[in-house]
Amino acid sequence: MGPENPSSFQLGTSCLVCARFVHTQGEMAAVNQVYIAVIGAGGVGKCFLSQLQALAARKPSPKLSLCYIATSRKALYNADYSPVSLDGVTETLAASTQAPPPLSQVIDYLAAAPAKVVLVDNTSSQDVADAYPLALSRGLNIVTPNKKAFSGSYKLWQDIFRASATSGAKVYHESSVGAGLPVISTLKDLVETGDKVTKIEGVFSGTMSFLFNSFAPTHGQGGKWSEEVKKAKALGYTEPDPRDDLNGLDVARKLTILARLAGLPVESPTSFPVQSLIPKELESSSSGDEFLDKLPAFDQQMEDTKAAAEKAHKVVRFVGSIDVATQQVKVGLEQFDRSHPIASLKGSDNIISFYTERYGTNPLIIQGAGAGGDVTAMGVTGDFIRVLSQIA
Amino acid sequence: MGPENPSSFQLGTSCLVCARFVHTQGEMAAVNQVYIAVIGAGGVGKCFLSQLQALAARKPSPKLSLCYIATSRKALYNADYSPVSLDGVTETLAASTQAPPPLSQVIDYLAAAPAKVVLVDNTSSQDVADAYPLALSRGLNIVTPNKKAFSGSYKLWQDIFRASATSGAKVYHESSVGAGLPVISTLKDLVETGDKVTKIEGVFSGTMSFLFNSFAPTHGQGGKWSEEVKKAKALGYTEPDPRDDLNGLDVARKLTILARLAGLPVESPTSFPVQSLIPKELESSSSGDEFLDKLPAFDQQMEDTKAAAEKAHKVVRFVGSIDVATQQVKVGLEQFDRSHPIASLKGSDNIISFYTERYGTNPLIIQGAGAGGDVTAMGVTGDFIRVLSQIA
Repeated sequence: MGPENPSSFQLGTSCLVCARFVHTQGEMAAVNQVYIAVIGAGGVGKCFLSQLQALAARKPSPKLSLCYIATSRKALYNADYSPVSLDGVTETLAASTQAPPPLSQVIDYLAAAPAKVVLVDNTSSQDVADAYPLALSRGLNIVTPNKKAFSGSYKLWQDIFRASATSGAKVYHESSVGAGLPVISTLKDLVETGDKVTKIEGVFSGTMSFLFNSFAPTHGQGGKWSEEVKKAKALGYTEPDPRDDLNGLDVARKLTILARLAGLPVESPTSFPVQSLIPKELESSSSGDEFLDKLPAFDQQMEDTKAAAEKAHKVVRFVGSIDVATQQVKVGLEQFDRSHPIASLKGSDNIISFYTERYGTNPLIIQGAGAGGDVTAMGVTGDFIRVLSQIA
Repeated sequence: MGPENPSSFQLGTSCLVCARFVHTQGEMAAVNQVYIAVIGAGGVGKCFLSQLQALAARKPSPKLSLCYIATSRKALYNADYSPVSLDGVTETLAASTQAPPPLSQVIDYLAAAPAKVVLVDNTSSQDVADAYPLALSRGLNIVTPNKKAFSGSYKLWQDIFRASATSGAKVYHESSVGAGLPVISTLKDLVETGDKVTKIEGVFSGTMSFLFNSFAPTHGQGGKWSEEVKKAKALGYTEPDPRDDLNGLDVARKLTILARLAGLPVESPTSFPVQSLIPKELESSSSGDEFLDKLPAFDQQMEDTKAAAEKAHKVVRFVGSIDVATQQVKVGLEQFDRSHPIASLKGSDNIISFYTERYGTNPLIIQGAGAGGDVTAMGVTGDFIRVLSQIA
């Protein structure tokens, strides 16, 4: 009984997970069970769970069932895979007395589940990322905003996609760049349909976007650098220690992911030039607060940078770029005409321009909020739906 | 032998189209056959065939096989489904002496194929569009840039998606709006992940974009309206009769599609206000050339429109918008600040802004070439790859 002879399948006795039967007969698709495992219940994790709950209520086919959920300290699951209720799950999890088993045991548990599994990693943990090749090789599908998996060593990248290709398990990570903006999917489409990407350029950090749109606006004066950093922190636009944004590593990780998707074997996010906006003297400050206290003494450096751009009738922005032909990846300050789309960005928006052979001189541009729990979770939920459409 | 007990499948004897087996065992995915049928071999059709040829050469799994190709007058296919070679297929087709059978017979032929089928409709034919419900109900997957299917009567729209939901056959139409730009997929993602789209606004016609970017540039004077229309025609940016662009119907069709995806039951592209830029007196001109000859006599109307915008320090653009809350859809001239992204568009680019609850005050924006054979075909090929990932 092979695919060449689908009419010999019998309803109710043949393989229910096979869509072939449905297509040739015009019957209703069978309701398949899909198990979901979620790691991480922080900002993005909570938003994802809320979106998942709405989705599960709306989507009777396939039948979604949460079989595992954990933070770094707590877990909820049943040995017989009976479902964990999505209603008030974050509260139930917080009250749980179960500790999460070691990752290898979690993977054993999930790989033995009696239906297909999607593992949603909503952490930014390197440990979880390092377990992707094992999870994929055991048939677990993965959906995640976790940048670490795709911007760490090139070997980890290769191991992940080799495991996926061999087992057929899917791995999607739209939200690892630009949150819910369709950045990864667009780049993949360009490459897979045979376009030649020549250059990718943009503002990839909501924090940096906000800082420079306030510090060096296209119209008006802008504030002092150290004050803008303090304001951004107060508004929740920076990491607890703003140096984690200002060192440029977050942008470098995103560039690493896009460069690899465009075909460049970038070794790591530290293998190309990344300009840090932390004054050398403050790299060793003991805390983010101490750093912020001492930052005003260095305002003149940034003021000079702004003035140099103004002299050329331009504004300064913190951008990342990938030149595919010359294999050059770089992150740092650059000057742009005031009418350039990168200069006229608003708020904490991201902008990503894809220059390709087919699109010619005017790039394909994607722009909008590139950070925030809800839009990041949206990228995860979108990927989750994509995986469902392929496995259920 | 059900999905609950996948380990009981035996390699080589179980259903090869079922991915479940592959996932749990970590074996290489089986190479499945997928049949492709292509209708239309014009500008977009030729570009698609060239992209398909490259894809088939690159993608050994699944095995792609062209089993039918036709224009309105010629066809190539074999009763036993043996493949039509992709090498030089447009030339072979042009030399064919076979006429295409009636569509219902083509659907019978494809539905009886010994493997899954993707029907690629690269025409703009209403007749082919009208056959989608039948094709889908017979299990044929459809990929197309044909706007007619999704912007005709609301009944046809419902019939198409009802047939798809019942049979499980897929239907994708990214290139029906904004060519290869990720417009449809982004809107679908927003809706499916539970965001609330409040407004969609943009420039949806490459022709209109080019005309207004030249006629009323943000800097400088711009030419006379009739001369810009003549120039656009000479550059191949308009339909053979430019009135087919200037009547606004093309934009109205795209708005109809997006409004329906956003949940509005728009009856047809003529059921909301659409401003035509054809002077009443020239609607009955016997040809596009006669229209162009007489157009200069009406330049003053457009000149007045431009002057009114300039007086308000703005520029005039031809836009479409959908206000989801008030269910208002409209197409026509509007004024924009010179710094607005819609005003500063370049060349023949499209721009589409999605205002949603999650994205807040700054919309998610997609921008780039929205017309042209290669980028339109790219949207088709991207959809084709998406369908393959779900059926093969």
